[in-house]
Order: sequence, then structure tokens, then C-alpha cells
Amino acid sequence: MAETTHPSRVTIGLVQMTMGPDCAANLRAAQDATRRAAAAGARIICLPELYRSQYFCQKEDARLFDLAEPVPGPSTEAFQALAAELRAVIIVPVFEKRAPGVHHNSAAVIDADGALLGLYRKMHVPDDPAYYEKFYFAPGDLGFRVFDTAFGRVGVLICWDQWYPEAARLTALRGATMLFYPTAIGWHPHEKAQYGAAQRDAWTTVQRGHAIANGVYVAAVNRVGFERPVPEQAGIEFWGMSFVADPQGVIIAQAPEDREDVLTAEVDLEHLETIRRNWPFLRDRRIDAYHGIERRFLEDA
Amino acid sequence: MAETTHPSRVTIGLVQMTMGPDCAANLRAAQDATRRAAAAGARIICLPELYRSQYFCQKEDARLFDLAEPVPGPSTEAFQALAAELRAVIIVPVFEKRAPGVHHNSAAVIDADGALLGLYRKMHVPDDPAYYEKFYFAPGDLGFRVFDTAFGRVGVLICWDQWYPEAARLTALRGATMLFYPTAIGWHPHEKAQYGAAQRDAWTTVQRGHAIANGVYVAAVNRVGFERPVPEQAGIEFWGMSFVADPQGVIIAQAPEDREDVLTAEVDLEHLETIRRNWPFLRDRRIDAYHGIERRFLEDA
Repeated sequence: MAETTHPSRVTIGLVQMTMGPDCAANLRAAQDATRRAAAAGARIICLPELYRSQYFCQKEDARLFDLAEPVPGPSTEAFQALAAELRAVIIVPVFEKRAPGVHHNSAAVIDADGALLGLYRKMHVPDDPAYYEKFYFAPGDLGFRVFDTAFGRVGVLICWDQWYPEAARLTALRGATMLFYPTAIGWHPHEKAQYGAAQRDAWTTVQRGHAIANGVYVAAVNRVGFERPVPEQAGIEFWGMSFVADPQGVIIAQAPEDREDVLTAEVDLEHLETIRRNWPFLRDRRIDAYHGIERRFLEDA
Repeated sequence: MAETTHPSRVTIGLVQMTMGPDCAANLRAAQDATRRAAAAGARIICLPELYRSQYFCQKEDARLFDLAEPVPGPSTEAFQALAAELRAVIIVPVFEKRAPGVHHNSAAVIDADGALLGLYRKMHVPDDPAYYEKFYFAPGDLGFRVFDTAFGRVGVLICWDQWYPEAARLTALRGATMLFYPTAIGWHPHEKAQYGAAQRDAWTTVQRGHAIANGVYVAAVNRVGFERPVPEQAGIEFWGMSFVADPQGVIIAQAPEDREDVLTAEVDLEHLETIRRNWPFLRDRRIDAYHGIERRFLEDA
């Protein structure tokens, strides 16, 4: 750790980006946006899921494993240098090549002195039309983790994880005061008119629910813009709207739906303490009665 | 069960009430409202938490255990007769006297033929200023349950339970398609102006989150009106706003904040099927990695 005590207030920065087909350009754009976030006062900065490329999971193509990179590798090296320069914590999603045929959808947490604190590997991996992630990513095997950074104990979860209360709970129980969700979520163009508002509202709501149930800050960092890497498919319109919710679920900052943004918000541990004292949900958990959570379904229970 | 197959669509009814000091009058008012709900088409009808009295937990007074009743007892007998008459399922909260010195905050589920299917006993019991429930109620010991009624498999949870994702999850894993939350929640008058909107929004949001995460209907049934049973205290302004959320978290019916209401909404199991097919969250749970949920906190993990 760069410091030994955490400040009670810290500004966090969320980089909402568009991605083009050139990975090197995406990396440079992410570096530039990270500098802008730091210049705006952010000391913990988070990039969107798989920031270095377009969302390639719209089709299953083994050649696209070429996009993967090792850890340490280009992304972590570039952002380790930048973190040390900016004195900022940076959360860097990585399409991780772990071994031939073993890849993960991961995020590296880099401390403010440039040290690589560790990885989170996406635990819940989706597979839906145009989100063919089970083809690309082995399920994470590191569990739900926290990272003691110079500016606070941080939890990192990734996209599909955001629908799972267990992921937020276990990360919060390990002492995270803020959960970052690098994300790539958007609309199928043919669904947007009929279902789009409800889908995006559900995405926001379930994450605000995690903030409330656990008394933590939640930061969702989405990409934005239309990507159609497969011409014969309709593409995905990523809906932006990155946001930060406080420990009562109040949205304290939100990015637009249609353009890039460097969003900042203040995490205040005194406010978190106040909320948890007054709404002491963690006190009353019935830990004697939660068996069954580790089962798929309970038709016989 | 009154029938052996469940209809795919059923209208549910939520009785949002004010309560006065006369328990017999509250019981009669609840019966009248239940009749109105049935007349409006409701086949599953739910009353608010502790419907038969004002919210007595605003002070700790051992004499108030006189308000408790056994099961079977006046509430269940009255509503068993009414259920059979109306051919409706009725969820009846009860301040349950189980034995001298053993009381619960419970809800009886009565089937459409008048049979008492069973009890849910509130598992998560709060204790906050003017909500001194730990004094009155022993923690529930029946776990998280479902009830196979004539009109569907119903889960019942009570008020403070609504802040706990584990309660909703375990009930949904047992096959509930709808979760009913009889509730008594309101504002401390001195907090309403500054915190009231955020508090009520959090209450709505966390329950919508349960609907989304589990793909179930959620029905919250609150009381309404100002109750000040302890003259030297400020009282509680119960905020009404009973609602029904669909399996995507969309609020499909909501009662007003300032008056009684008999709210009805349609539960559609085909819609639930569609939502769960398209957002298959239950498919991807990492049941190998949820250990720790049954711990209070994980500082050493």
C-alpha cells in the first residue's frame, strides 16, 4: 500500500468509453481518460469491461483469442506506470490469457504506487444471444475478493455479476466499502423500443439494491456507443449511464447514455458509517438459516 | 389445495389499511377490505403486518403481549371462514402467542378452501428507535417457506426481511413465483423532510431488486396513516405506497401514500417464464463459491 491509513473521503473516477477496432487506440484513449479523471481529483479510477477492444463476444470465433493478453502484460504494464505517475489506484479490465485454451474476463487492481495488487476473475459468465461469453471465458476461480488500496478497501465484480446478490454480499462481508462493476451492457436494436427502458432500469435498480442491502458504494462503469463487428448481425447499442450509488442506493453521479464521459463522485466513509448505524442490516442476518443458498434449486426442500 | 393445477394468471389483492386502537374494529375493517379485494377479482389477498392493532412496538411494555393471539385463534378462524366463502387465498399476519413468553411476528397462509396451510414466522427481527421488535418477537424458527395454494406457490416474508437478499433468494429457490411482504414501515416525523424520500425509495428499490434477481413477482403490503400510541414520542407516519413489481422489477401497481387502498394486480406466469428465459440469472449462479454467506463477517477470509 502506498499509504497505511485510508482517507475517509476519496473521489472515484469512472471512464465511460466508446471502443473502436484498434486496440492500441483504445488503450491510448483509456490512458488519456484516466489522466483526465486524475486531473479531476479521482484517486480510484475504473475502466469499462474489456476496455481494450470492441465487444468481440457478439460471435464465437476462435481467432479472437488473439485479443487476449497475459497478466502481467500490455494493459497492466501501461497502467502500472500510469498509476505510479498519477498516484492513483486504477482498475483495469483484461481479456486474460492464462494458458493456451484458458482465458478469463478479468480485472487487475493496481495500487497508487503502481503495484499490481491482484486480479478478480469474473465469476458469473453469461451466455445470451450476442453475448457469447461462455465460449471465451472460463469461470473465475479466485472467488469474491477485496483489495486494500491506498485509498480504501475495494471490491471488483464484472458485468453479469451485477445480477447476483451473493456476489455483492460476499464482497461486502470481506470489508469492501465500494464495489466497482466494469460493464459492457446494451440493447439489441430490435428490442430497444419495446423493452429498452425496463431493461436499463432493472440494471440500475438491482445494483442500487446491492448498495442498500450491504451499505456500500456501488460504481457501475459501462461502455457506450453502437458496435456491429459482425455485419450480418444487428449489433449492440451500449447504453452508457455509468453511475455511482451511495450506501442508501441514492444515485450521486450518472453519465449520459449517448457519449463518452469521465464521471467523478465522492465516496465518504463517514456517510457509510452513518447509514449502517441507522440501517443495521448486517447486524440481523440470520446466518443460522441461509443453508440452501449453495444449491441450484430447492424443489425437495 | 382447492385445485390441483395453478392458473397461469391470477389477480392478487393488497389491502393497505389504517389501524385504530380497537382491535375488533381493525379485524372488521380487514374483513371488509378483503371482500372488496375479492369483488375486484383478487384470488390471493394479503393484509399488512400486524394488521389487527396499531404498531405497538413503538415502546417496550410487557402489558402489550395481551395483544397476541394463538394460531389457530381469532384471526385465523375469521379469515379461514372468509377464505372459504370468497374462494380466495388470504395471507393473514398474526402477533402470534406460541407459549407464555414466546411470541412471533407471523403470517398465516389460508388456502381458498379455508384450510390453514401454515405459518411463516418473521426471520429477521429489527430493533431500532420506535421499532422495538426484538423485545416482542422471538426470531422465526421455521425458515424460508413456500405455500402451495390453489392459485400458485406463494412465498411470505415480513417487513425487515425485505432488506435481506438471502430471504428472497431462498424463498424463490423453493419455487415461489410471488413474494408477499406484509409491512409496517414509515417515517419518524422529524426525519421525513430530510431523509424521507431516500428512505422510501430505498425500500422500494431493494424489493424491486429481489424481483429482478430472482425473476419473481414481489408484493409489498404496507399500512398507512399516522400512529402515535405513546404521547411523549413523536409517532410514526406510515408511508403506504404498497406495490407490486413484476419479475423484471417493473412496478405494475402502486397504492397512494396518504390513504387506504385495495390494490390489485395480475400475476402472469407466462410473463415470468419469458423473463426468466431471457434473463437466466438462476442458471449461472456460482453455487460452488457462495460459502461464507453463512458467516457474520469475513475479516479473516
